[in-house]
Amino acid sequence: MGAARLLRGLSSLLEPRALTVIVNTGDDETFFGLHVSPDVDTILYTLAGVVSPGQGWGIDRDTFRCLQALQGYYTDAWFQLGDRDLATHIYRTDRLRRGDSLTVITHAIAEAHCVRQRVLPMTDAAVRTFVRVAGHGTLPFQEYLVHRRGHGKVESIEPRGAKEARPATGVLEAIRQARYVILPPSNPFVSIGPILALRGVAATLRSTRARVAAISPIVGGAPIKGPLHRMLRGLGHEVSALGVARLYKDFVDLFVIDRCDRRFAEPIAELGMKSVVTDTIMSTPAKSLRLAGAVLQALES
Amino acid sequence: MGAARLLRGLSSLLEPRALTVIVNTGDDETFFGLHVSPDVDTILYTLAGVVSPGQGWGIDRDTFRCLQALQGYYTDAWFQLGDRDLATHIYRTDRLRRGDSLTVITHAIAEAHCVRQRVLPMTDAAVRTFVRVAGHGTLPFQEYLVHRRGHGKVESIEPRGAKEARPATGVLEAIRQARYVILPPSNPFVSIGPILALRGVAATLRSTRARVAAISPIVGGAPIKGPLHRMLRGLGHEVSALGVARLYKDFVDLFVIDRCDRRFAEPIAELGMKSVVTDTIMSTPAKSLRLAGAVLQALES
Repeated sequence: MGAARLLRGLSSLLEPRALTVIVNTGDDETFFGLHVSPDVDTILYTLAGVVSPGQGWGIDRDTFRCLQALQGYYTDAWFQLGDRDLATHIYRTDRLRRGDSLTVITHAIAEAHCVRQRVLPMTDAAVRTFVRVAGHGTLPFQEYLVHRRGHGKVESIEPRGAKEARPATGVLEAIRQARYVILPPSNPFVSIGPILALRGVAATLRSTRARVAAISPIVGGAPIKGPLHRMLRGLGHEVSALGVARLYKDFVDLFVIDRCDRRFAEPIAELGMKSVVTDTIMSTPAKSLRLAGAVLQALES
Repeated sequence: MGAARLLRGLSSLLEPRALTVIVNTGDDETFFGLHVSPDVDTILYTLAGVVSPGQGWGIDRDTFRCLQALQGYYTDAWFQLGDRDLATHIYRTDRLRRGDSLTVITHAIAEAHCVRQRVLPMTDAAVRTFVRVAGHGTLPFQEYLVHRRGHGKVESIEPRGAKEARPATGVLEAIRQARYVILPPSNPFVSIGPILALRGVAATLRSTRARVAAISPIVGGAPIKGPLHRMLRGLGHEVSALGVARLYKDFVDLFVIDRCDRRFAEPIAELGMKSVVTDTIMSTPAKSLRLAGAVLQALES
């Protein structure tokens, strides 16, 4: 997850209180009756330093005893949930049922993990991203990504409920009052798109006095991870950093691309954005730190 | 749990299909938003052969990784739930929320564990046993038993909701059509009492043509396990096998007492029950088998 890796770097450079993370909840899903927020948890576990470094989600060295037992009860127990990770979903589900908001619960989970950065779910409302895949119909995002491994021709992507959903308390204010807004190298359709689709977010991004940077999730014509190339192609966009830059041109001031994509620097500048060329592959913590530093420096200059 | 130990013996002697177990749900409780049915699970795990032999509840060699993580979120995470055990509670809660009955879910859990005996929760309705303890007010049963360790003077015990609750489908029929009904050496107030309190159960027990046996949970003036002596005393009953026999005299034909209590054989006979004297402490599987055999033999003779 590009967002988590970038955050690892940013959180080393910034005071915890200087950082607000607005997190997609469009790929939230209910498994075994438990409300799972994969992106929120990955961000929280990353900031808490407990994320599994190998897989980039879940808790490091977690065990899967409960899941194994669940597989005795469910024939479709394909989603991986570790024993310690499950505690988060049980707790979130319990509090949601008692009427607490995702925002309040996310704050409590962060506190329990001593995370001091502000982590906001994008909304307290139910937004669910669906992906229509040729020959497979319309699938909930997790089923498309994890169960079907992101295969197939993408025909459309819809963050259902986003247009009517009010952003969580603090989201618009954070965008409005920030000095910088950074869109990480995440999937523009399913990770960033649902946030942008919420009522008022795109408008606030266009009107904020914050400088807005985005980092290309496409490097050398391929996504760093996941099925983004299929989505870009399926939805009629160019599978390149330039293709992504075009999606963001309305509100992004700086577009960060990898050295291997420097040929796009000029066409991106022509879209009205400053293009920044640097190493963007965060394969180590040191590289995450370096990219975060380069983005902050570019935003400051 | 006397019921589970007796069942271990009975299930070795009887065809699975010959055995119907009606289980108390009055000590069901919600922990972390999950519906836990301690008695049902102990019976199912016992019949499945996976119960923890040391503690008599939960699953053998279970781990507690999820619970440890839950303790990071909850300040009052005192109830012990193992990782594999949790799967049962997650599954039950999920299906209850989808509208399935406890009876149907219990059957599904039994099937998943290859349990072929019929296990019926006493009711699908919510019945909750509360214990009023001097100086502590009225406590839900699990809090009284586990959290407060069954301490304090018992002033009253109430299976709330029992009188209005209809027994689960199959319960009255099982009592009516059985050849024998056996009340295990369980707590007459909190384990057997809630079942007897359900609409029609006591009447059916009185009118059934089945021979009804009960095994004393009090041996030598003390309960085999738990705070039954405090309950008997607090509620004005004699703390002895005779004290328990008096509670059952309306519908029990045979009352089984331990050799050390043989002096009660005559007063029990005077209550109108046949008294059976044998070894009733089931400290080993062999002793469970022997007691089960003795009870069946007494019922047959």
